[in-house]
Amino acid sequence: MSLYPSLEDMLVDKMVQSQNMAIAAAANQQQQYQAYAPTAPTTKDGNGLYPTFTNEKSSEIPPTYRADGAQVAIMYPNLSEYMGLELSNEMIQANLPHYMPQTHGTPNAIVPQQSAVSIVNNAHMVAPVTGHFTGLQRGQVTNGIRELVMCKGADKKVGLRVQAINKGIFVCLVVKNSPAALAGLRFGDQILQVNGTLVASFSVDDVHKLLKKSDNNNISVIVRDRPFERAITLHKDSSGSFGFQFNNGTITTIVKDSSAARNGLLIDQQLLEVNGQNVIAMKDKEIGQLISGSDQIITLTIVPKMIYDVMIKKLSTSWLRGKMDHSVPDF
Amino acid sequence: MSLYPSLEDMLVDKMVQSQNMAIAAAANQQQQYQAYAPTAPTTKDGNGLYPTFTNEKSSEIPPTYRADGAQVAIMYPNLSEYMGLELSNEMIQANLPHYMPQTHGTPNAIVPQQSAVSIVNNAHMVAPVTGHFTGLQRGQVTNGIRELVMCKGADKKVGLRVQAINKGIFVCLVVKNSPAALAGLRFGDQILQVNGTLVASFSVDDVHKLLKKSDNNNISVIVRDRPFERAITLHKDSSGSFGFQFNNGTITTIVKDSSAARNGLLIDQQLLEVNGQNVIAMKDKEIGQLISGSDQIITLTIVPKMIYDVMIKKLSTSWLRGKMDHSVPDF
Repeated sequence: MSLYPSLEDMLVDKMVQSQNMAIAAAANQQQQYQAYAPTAPTTKDGNGLYPTFTNEKSSEIPPTYRADGAQVAIMYPNLSEYMGLELSNEMIQANLPHYMPQTHGTPNAIVPQQSAVSIVNNAHMVAPVTGHFTGLQRGQVTNGIRELVMCKGADKKVGLRVQAINKGIFVCLVVKNSPAALAGLRFGDQILQVNGTLVASFSVDDVHKLLKKSDNNNISVIVRDRPFERAITLHKDSSGSFGFQFNNGTITTIVKDSSAARNGLLIDQQLLEVNGQNVIAMKDKEIGQLISGSDQIITLTIVPKMIYDVMIKKLSTSWLRGKMDHSVPDF
Repeated sequence: MSLYPSLEDMLVDKMVQSQNMAIAAAANQQQQYQAYAPTAPTTKDGNGLYPTFTNEKSSEIPPTYRADGAQVAIMYPNLSEYMGLELSNEMIQANLPHYMPQTHGTPNAIVPQQSAVSIVNNAHMVAPVTGHFTGLQRGQVTNGIRELVMCKGADKKVGLRVQAINKGIFVCLVVKNSPAALAGLRFGDQILQVNGTLVASFSVDDVHKLLKKSDNNNISVIVRDRPFERAITLHKDSSGSFGFQFNNGTITTIVKDSSAARNGLLIDQQLLEVNGQNVIAMKDKEIGQLISGSDQIITLTIVPKMIYDVMIKKLSTSWLRGKMDHSVPDF
């Protein structure tokens, strides 16, 4: 069973699959009239060599059929009838204009490049549209465990504030340009261990003291990647909108039949990152500019508002605004 | 930066890395006394063949050194000094007894098999311990989108109840042996589309009506995999415990210095699945038997209690107990 990061990815993948089936059918038909010329020479196996795997399946399709789109086109199933999907030209035009063929004579224009299909995780997620979109990768929430090594800055601080929630310790502030920011800590990361000491059930003060009394160099911090958060990927529609509104960073409205509605974005979720860039405590206008400035695709990192409120408890938005690291993460 | 599903995976991976470095160093030293016999014949590149990639790096190490562990052992760095990690024999004995070498003469016993190191997602998560543990894969929460096709059962029902939360539609009951259960729907899945109709902002009644009026066959349902849930993997310690207690399926206590504490399990989380098997509304005793019956490793699927309460609103536990699909999912 295939998995997709967005509904648009699913529709396009199914469309491509149906095209590939048609192209393969056309190629089969051609073989009845042509002598078969094998392109892959047999490889030796005796010396422990494995047969070469070139990952270029498409080269099996005779080039005359690939260049001459019109011949292949008549072999296509009617897309709008294929598996009951809404794949009419109008729907694609309205929602995914950049995947429309340039002219009707070259249907291959909507076949994404091979490199755009990536396996997003071991469940073999298929992403023909968002595949190698940087924001998707920057914004990905893995829930995995990693180790960071930090030093203290000139002010003897690491630039970190934590919050204790349900016996766990969570990062609620990473100060801009601080050692913590440079080490790649993010809002919402759960700190498991500091210099070999497990911090489960610690109070906030205990953790801050542990950091304060640690050496200036080689502070080892083991974190679990943002346990309460998730990323959701949307696609711009023809009006340039992703289909949601927000107030103070909280999503308030989902527009009917928009990409937000298709992909199941929810209200009462707090926007934490846009394409992996922290937007916490940013003004709505600035967040709006980041969103509208994004390409055709956007990846939002969100958390339920009720969990967000617990995480920033006691911290004022205006105070956070001046402190918080809003840099674009390296990838 | 490497990512790990559990802290135990991280410790073991680092230990293996340090061993491999030592083995490589030993192999290098041996080359000074031995003639170099290349094992990989040069492959032709002219015919479009790529050089063979056998993925068998370990074969580069001369076999005499692999079989004779004692010779390699003296090359090892002292593990407890390596990168400041707590990798003393006592700690491994206490927490990961099954990874202890059988005798001191065969240190290769703690090198996991190649197949045990898997890439868990595109962030290249490394899992030398839990790698191919079935429960990890059954319990994995991907947040991806997939399409299911269901038919109605003999009673003209699909066996599904939904809940509307934040303008989204969530599965809150999958009846055992129903078409929904057979199709692989799970508690917490978000339904995006039923037979081509987007269900964002629908009421519960609207969705139930949509399902009721659909044909008996070929009901297409597009779902996003459990957006509010996450999976966490723990390892049994020497006393046979994972280190947490629960009441009515809600985690109430994290034991100090246990695997639950190391991996950051939190209280006030509801247990939804144990190794991918639904345990909602099960009696605590039954859940406890499933947990203690698990092998050295366990994967728990959890959701914050406050979100769980919204999802099962109005449904009584005893009513759910009789209905809910508690089968072990295929994988």
